[in-house]
Amino acid sequence: LKTDNQNSSTSDGTTKRKRNIGEIARYLGGEVVGDAAVEVAGIASIEEAKPGDLTFLANPKYRAFLNTTSASAIIVGPDDDVSKCQKPLIKHKNPYLAFARALELFFGSHYDFPADIHPTAILGKDVLVEEGVHIGPHVVVENGTKLRQGSTILAGCFVGADSEIGEKSLIYPNVTIRENVKIGKKVIIHSGAVIGSDGFGFARDGIRYHKIPQVGGVEIGDDVEIGANVTVDRATLGVTRIGKGTKIDNLVQIAHNVNIGENCIIAGQVGISGSTQIGDGSVIAGQVGMAGHIKIGKGVIVGAQSGVTKDVPDGTTVFGYPAREIHKTKRIEAHLSRLDLYVERLKEVEQALKKIQKNSR
Amino acid sequence: LKTDNQNSSTSDGTTKRKRNIGEIARYLGGEVVGDAAVEVAGIASIEEAKPGDLTFLANPKYRAFLNTTSASAIIVGPDDDVSKCQKPLIKHKNPYLAFARALELFFGSHYDFPADIHPTAILGKDVLVEEGVHIGPHVVVENGTKLRQGSTILAGCFVGADSEIGEKSLIYPNVTIRENVKIGKKVIIHSGAVIGSDGFGFARDGIRYHKIPQVGGVEIGDDVEIGANVTVDRATLGVTRIGKGTKIDNLVQIAHNVNIGENCIIAGQVGISGSTQIGDGSVIAGQVGMAGHIKIGKGVIVGAQSGVTKDVPDGTTVFGYPAREIHKTKRIEAHLSRLDLYVERLKEVEQALKKIQKNSR
Amino acid sequence: LKTDNQNSSTSDGTTKRKRNIGEIARYLGGEVVGDAAVEVAGIASIEEAKPGDLTFLANPKYRAFLNTTSASAIIVGPDDDVSKCQKPLIKHKNPYLAFARALELFFGSHYDFPADIHPTAILGKDVLVEEGVHIGPHVVVENGTKLRQGSTILAGCFVGADSEIGEKSLIYPNVTIRENVKIGKKVIIHSGAVIGSDGFGFARDGIRYHKIPQVGGVEIGDDVEIGANVTVDRATLGVTRIGKGTKIDNLVQIAHNVNIGENCIIAGQVGISGSTQIGDGSVIAGQVGMAGHIKIGKGVIVGAQSGVTKDVPDGTTVFGYPAREIHKTKRIEAHLSRLDLYVERLKEVEQALKKIQKNSR
Repeated sequence: LKTDNQNSSTSDGTTKRKRNIGEIARYLGGEVVGDAAVEVAGIASIEEAKPGDLTFLANPKYRAFLNTTSASAIIVGPDDDVSKCQKPLIKHKNPYLAFARALELFFGSHYDFPADIHPTAILGKDVLVEEGVHIGPHVVVENGTKLRQGSTILAGCFVGADSEIGEKSLIYPNVTIRENVKIGKKVIIHSGAVIGSDGFGFARDGIRYHKIPQVGGVEIGDDVEIGANVTVDRATLGVTRIGKGTKIDNLVQIAHNVNIGENCIIAGQVGISGSTQIGDGSVIAGQVGMAGHIKIGKGVIVGAQSGVTKDVPDGTTVFGYPAREIHKTKRIEAHLSRLDLYVERLKEVEQALKKIQKNSR
Repeated sequence: LKTDNQNSSTSDGTTKRKRNIGEIARYLGGEVVGDAAVEVAGIASIEEAKPGDLTFLANPKYRAFLNTTSASAIIVGPDDDVSKCQKPLIKHKNPYLAFARALELFFGSHYDFPADIHPTAILGKDVLVEEGVHIGPHVVVENGTKLRQGSTILAGCFVGADSEIGEKSLIYPNVTIRENVKIGKKVIIHSGAVIGSDGFGFARDGIRYHKIPQVGGVEIGDDVEIGANVTVDRATLGVTRIGKGTKIDNLVQIAHNVNIGENCIIAGQVGISGSTQIGDGSVIAGQVGMAGHIKIGKGVIVGAQSGVTKDVPDGTTVFGYPAREIHKTKRIEAHLSRLDLYVERLKEVEQALKKIQKNSR
Repeated sequence: LKTDNQNSSTSDGTTKRKRNIGEIARYLGGEVVGDAAVEVAGIASIEEAKPGDLTFLANPKYRAFLNTTSASAIIVGPDDDVSKCQKPLIKHKNPYLAFARALELFFGSHYDFPADIHPTAILGKDVLVEEGVHIGPHVVVENGTKLRQGSTILAGCFVGADSEIGEKSLIYPNVTIRENVKIGKKVIIHSGAVIGSDGFGFARDGIRYHKIPQVGGVEIGDDVEIGANVTVDRATLGVTRIGKGTKIDNLVQIAHNVNIGENCIIAGQVGISGSTQIGDGSVIAGQVGMAGHIKIGKGVIVGAQSGVTKDVPDGTTVFGYPAREIHKTKRIEAHLSRLDLYVERLKEVEQALKKIQKNSR
């Protein structure tokens, strides 16, 4: 079973080629329930799917669509209640992962770039260009930088001196990578991101601020993805580090000397202040802010918009402004919803007391 | 009455040509109170206006300046108290709109671009360039993209394959528009914006995250304005949609499969998570965060920095973290300001009780 | 004593040339305690320093490292307890400033650009290029703009018409500066920043929004630093102004007609709404949001993630959402942590009362 490696630009998620769900289930490592000969030619969400589409159920919020979707077949999890569902199913232990792999099967690699250097690209001295590298129009790569095998730098990017772009990494248009930035293998960096800008460091001298030279670097591990318009500052000394497999959403700010572990999720518009550390496998929800010089443990979850001001132990879920252990914040929130009532009860107590005091005189 | 269509670069809001307020009032559809022959040659804010300037009163905070401004004439609303004001006035039912149109009259269109393609621009195969299109230096437009009549793509922009820029739309320098993005008519996109970056979708596979291919597109309606360094992610499947007439401020994050209605206002640094829907005519204030997969109704107002975690019905105003109906949040805030007092009262009650209990023994 | 003016690209903060701490202390204006002949060849943080490195103690959080660091010498403050420290020290009244100057001594100026214009740069009519100006590849400078002595515009930048870049200012790659923007001397602007985008101003006309032309400019004072992907909108009329010596971190949004004083610190992801004023010497922590048309005094400190909704007097520290005087917010937070307890106490009071009421019947 081959994937379609053509650039598919249809917006509705359909392609022409039909596949039966038996072969799809085998490719995904799932099990067919129902007619394995049913054919599908596209993939769509459970709300929008039409006949001929494959769909999936991964978010319980969409469970109600299981019996109403127009899709021809559905990828479901082992525990989903499918007793009322007449459609052929692919049972899979991880339906969302199966969906991801089905998309790859139907759509192939979105970008497939030839090994060439556009004539308008400007390369400095001693730039190493390994086999299979693609460099787009108006790219600038400065002296001594290494572009590893199969890496792709698209239009308008700037890559500073003595940096390195790892094997098969993909840099989208208009990214800025400053000097002395080391990027691993299969990294994806989206447009407008800035990697290696100066850390925000100033020494106060009377009423004026004196710039601290930012002479460190940035190191980004393999399989990292960095969203559009993200900023990752270089270290003052040493490196700002993002561990392998970590995924960073759009408009995130990562300050100088931050150290993020492996396989973390950092959602949109998060801000992480200087020298803060985040352990492996942590999940930081959108718009969270973190103070500088703190240590977030491994496997920590931080709820959206929280303000984290101190160390968080391994495996803890924190939430709120300021961030507290989540059950504590939830109790406070519940109390806040009842404040009106508490104040009313306090008044009643006061009145009852007054009455008692009056009577006892 | 013709508008001045030259590129005016004065910072103080003055041009040389004089107009009397009678002709200005006719152009704006307002009514002169006082001497219609008074001439003005510039426009300025009510605080900074000098003799010879026209000004306006739209924000009640500035009402005090009505009697002290040095302006030669003032645009006012139908209900403004102008009893002490000696200056000639233009009464208009919508003074802020009248001010906008007066600016157009005095300054004309800020940019007026010739129909040409800069020799350093790189156009792919089958790019459709309709009449009146302007393409600036170092622009890259990829295969199969359509640039509709009178559209303008300024320096350093990238437009991916199979996209479309609608009639008279204006794309400022250094914007990135990825493949399969459809932009309507008279859209304005400011510098650094990224439209069509990959949605942030990963399926967890043990401790690692596996990328969900993002194969959908983006559709932006007519008359939309998108601020500087905004990010709009493409859909996983289907489209991320921004309805016509919606205005989006700087540094806003719009995730994959979000659907924003028509004529909405989204202020700076707002973040909208995946698959969330916002109804027509809603106003989202600065730094608001919204959870994914929720439905915000029509005509909803969300106060600044709120965290919206669940559906909001049509016509509701919500505020706070978490966002509650605004009166509820305001009551909680008022209680919070008095917490000291409540705790004091609780102590007094406890002491009084102790006294009663002691006496009754 | 000369600084090394070569471009040093080592990430570990080491260079080859050795200096003894006596000469370093003289250069920094500090006093040696211990053996002035000890030599150092690099600079590193107190945690990561190795033998042969100079380090420093500025943040009390790192005090414990004073006795365990492997550094060969340490810059300390006048009041640091160094009784147990065997290492040679440089005592300095401002160790962080001394560290900054030591970095300059060891690393020199990070960028040192030749006076030249890259052949791919596009300059409009009447562009003034003074002595010592460096213009990188694919830069676009439009008509009538002035590039003052020794200013540097790196790859991919756009500078609009009738703007000015002051003496020795440094504009990093892929910055967009629109027309009619005046930038002072020794200003640093980081990649992806957008200066002079349109202010977000619309007049409502029924259900639709009508654009207010933004015909003002931007003025940025001497010695300002602006972070990566920052947005500074042009004024509607007049100018948006950033006072000299003010430092702005990444992803900050500064709206139209904002006026920021001198020597302020604006941390990452702050958002300042239209026409708001900030006095000299104020410090605004990360992710703060400010309403429009308010006046923040001189020397104000605003805590992280605060929402400032009204004027703040000179010299005040505010914090919270909404921002209150900091002691008030801290008291409220302390009460919130004890809400469980208060509610318990309220219940006890109610039960005791009931008992009394029962007995008295």
